[in-house]
Amino acid sequence: MNGSSSAQQVHIALGERSYDIAIGAGLLDDPASFDAARAGTQALIVTDATVGPLYAERLARVLARRHPQVRQLALPDGEQHKSWESLNLVFDELLGSGADRKTTLYALGGGVVGDMTGFAAACYMRGVPFVQVPTTLLAQVDSSVGGKTAINHPLGKNMIGAFYQPLAVVCDLDVLKTLPPRELSAGLAEVIKYGPIADMDFLDWIETHVDALRACDPAALAQAVKRSCEIKAEVVGQDERESGLRAILNFGHTFGHAIEAGMGYGAWLHGEAVGAGMVMAAELSRELGLVDAGFVQRLTALIERAGLPTRGPVLDAQDNAGRYLQLMRIDKKAEGGEIRFVLIDGPGRAVVRAVPDALVRQVIDRCCA
Amino acid sequence: MNGSSSAQQVHIALGERSYDIAIGAGLLDDPASFDAARAGTQALIVTDATVGPLYAERLARVLARRHPQVRQLALPDGEQHKSWESLNLVFDELLGSGADRKTTLYALGGGVVGDMTGFAAACYMRGVPFVQVPTTLLAQVDSSVGGKTAINHPLGKNMIGAFYQPLAVVCDLDVLKTLPPRELSAGLAEVIKYGPIADMDFLDWIETHVDALRACDPAALAQAVKRSCEIKAEVVGQDERESGLRAILNFGHTFGHAIEAGMGYGAWLHGEAVGAGMVMAAELSRELGLVDAGFVQRLTALIERAGLPTRGPVLDAQDNAGRYLQLMRIDKKAEGGEIRFVLIDGPGRAVVRAVPDALVRQVIDRCCA
Repeated sequence: MNGSSSAQQVHIALGERSYDIAIGAGLLDDPASFDAARAGTQALIVTDATVGPLYAERLARVLARRHPQVRQLALPDGEQHKSWESLNLVFDELLGSGADRKTTLYALGGGVVGDMTGFAAACYMRGVPFVQVPTTLLAQVDSSVGGKTAINHPLGKNMIGAFYQPLAVVCDLDVLKTLPPRELSAGLAEVIKYGPIADMDFLDWIETHVDALRACDPAALAQAVKRSCEIKAEVVGQDERESGLRAILNFGHTFGHAIEAGMGYGAWLHGEAVGAGMVMAAELSRELGLVDAGFVQRLTALIERAGLPTRGPVLDAQDNAGRYLQLMRIDKKAEGGEIRFVLIDGPGRAVVRAVPDALVRQVIDRCCA
Repeated sequence: MNGSSSAQQVHIALGERSYDIAIGAGLLDDPASFDAARAGTQALIVTDATVGPLYAERLARVLARRHPQVRQLALPDGEQHKSWESLNLVFDELLGSGADRKTTLYALGGGVVGDMTGFAAACYMRGVPFVQVPTTLLAQVDSSVGGKTAINHPLGKNMIGAFYQPLAVVCDLDVLKTLPPRELSAGLAEVIKYGPIADMDFLDWIETHVDALRACDPAALAQAVKRSCEIKAEVVGQDERESGLRAILNFGHTFGHAIEAGMGYGAWLHGEAVGAGMVMAAELSRELGLVDAGFVQRLTALIERAGLPTRGPVLDAQDNAGRYLQLMRIDKKAEGGEIRFVLIDGPGRAVVRAVPDALVRQVIDRCCA
């Protein structure tokens, strides 16, 4: 009846901050999915206006077996609301209901809800426990795993945040059935990225199964989520706070963040911007002689088959490359004004380095519609 | 010429987050005081409208030897500005000036500046390094040490924050000479608290030297800061994230926070509220038979000699005790609606426990003016 027997586990090894990702069908209705949370404490489900009506009541019913009081809060929907104002709604709710230091937060939603709930948990009374219940493919394969939490600032994406690990991540594959196709494609961008940076066999597998994934085939989704989480777990386990290696997970994100900021948050989905961004980063790698044209074509074709844009938008009719460069210079990966790009150093291996502006300009000029 | 040769060090042992507190005269003008900060990075001095004009230029001059760019930002002054709005001024400045992930923040000021700068450092790009340069006695003996950072929420003090350790704490005793007497007294409240909770010999010493301390005698101040930091270092080293023992450092603070919130932040100085709060907590300890009346009288007399209030304000003419209880229930130390008090369990030893409301009411009725 419930999916716990068929659930797969991926372990994130971070010493006393270690936890498991459970992946399977029907996990949302299985009380055992939430065993990592301390019973007897208060709970707050943070969700959004889209996901809340679909799943919040079901989650609340299951959590009522662990927590004497389960409250719910729906935040406004979308990347443009990943702001201090929305975050403060969580604090208002917590303080208004007398939530103490043991109150457990549940992030029920996509990346925006997960990032904001995690950051709220990191800050409320200097840290309360939280559980990720990601409901988008993007959140299940990437943003809910690894403890990066943040809100946006008008001058930059994810600029204010914390590294703060959840008690558990519960990926119920059934909820992906209600995901709009555009959101599913956006999630596939983060699945695809794991291939070029870490595992070309996985890229092969995605090429074979991309249609099944877009059709929400349960077995294909289970494998995509599991392998993505495994690769992420390995990287995060080695470099929790992104002092080095972890930056490779940002493949396509330097260009992608510029697209999101330049178009206005929410105009392009994060995964869409990463899709076009990966093509640009691959092209830049080719310019540097790190991969050949066949590799770029192969990656571009897969991104297209996933239903994602493969060309960046024009952000400035006068000086498009200049605008991209300007936006990328305030990205977190920049250091001393120098933009650091995640490049593919031969298929299946990533490297992080600076690149001369002239070369970046060429690539932007060639890769924007 | 500089005081580094006479500087004393107190070590905070927290594994990879360990650091030193330097205590001495003239440290602000000594480049060696800031050796823990990585050279070659950008720097931002965060200060306030009172301290900035006195010391920011001097600090900037010394830091220019380590950092190619040293910017300054003065926040509005006072506890009522320990808010998201002020915190956001720091983020605006950092993002506006292109500050990267290695930018070092310097907190130059009292507890408010230290708490806000530390929290900004904890959150900016998910964490940048920072150094505490406390300029009040209160900040030198307490708030700058141990990594507690926070801002206030309209519904509660220090409700939003992080445990985030500095690279170093630099306590220049010379700057205390410009401290208004009222601020000096407020700092003495946090010095006095270490006696009853941990070291009655230190309480004896304070009784002998309280007049010298109020007169800013350098040797007395040096000893008071050093011994206070030693006790705090020992407690924090055992319980960084306040899962147990560390709560004893909040002696007097449960009542004190109610006073601050009830009067409106900034009306009473934090140390003043803690002064009256310690008398109330001592009286509560006596009601429970943990200390005798002589102990309470002795502590009360010292608090008075330090220039601090020994009676709490009336927060509500109709139901004063009810108002105190209401405010204390939303303090961080409350759990499941139960207020946990730091009590003196025999001189020099603290214990944290719940107390029946009726007893707390009696004490409040007796201890408020």
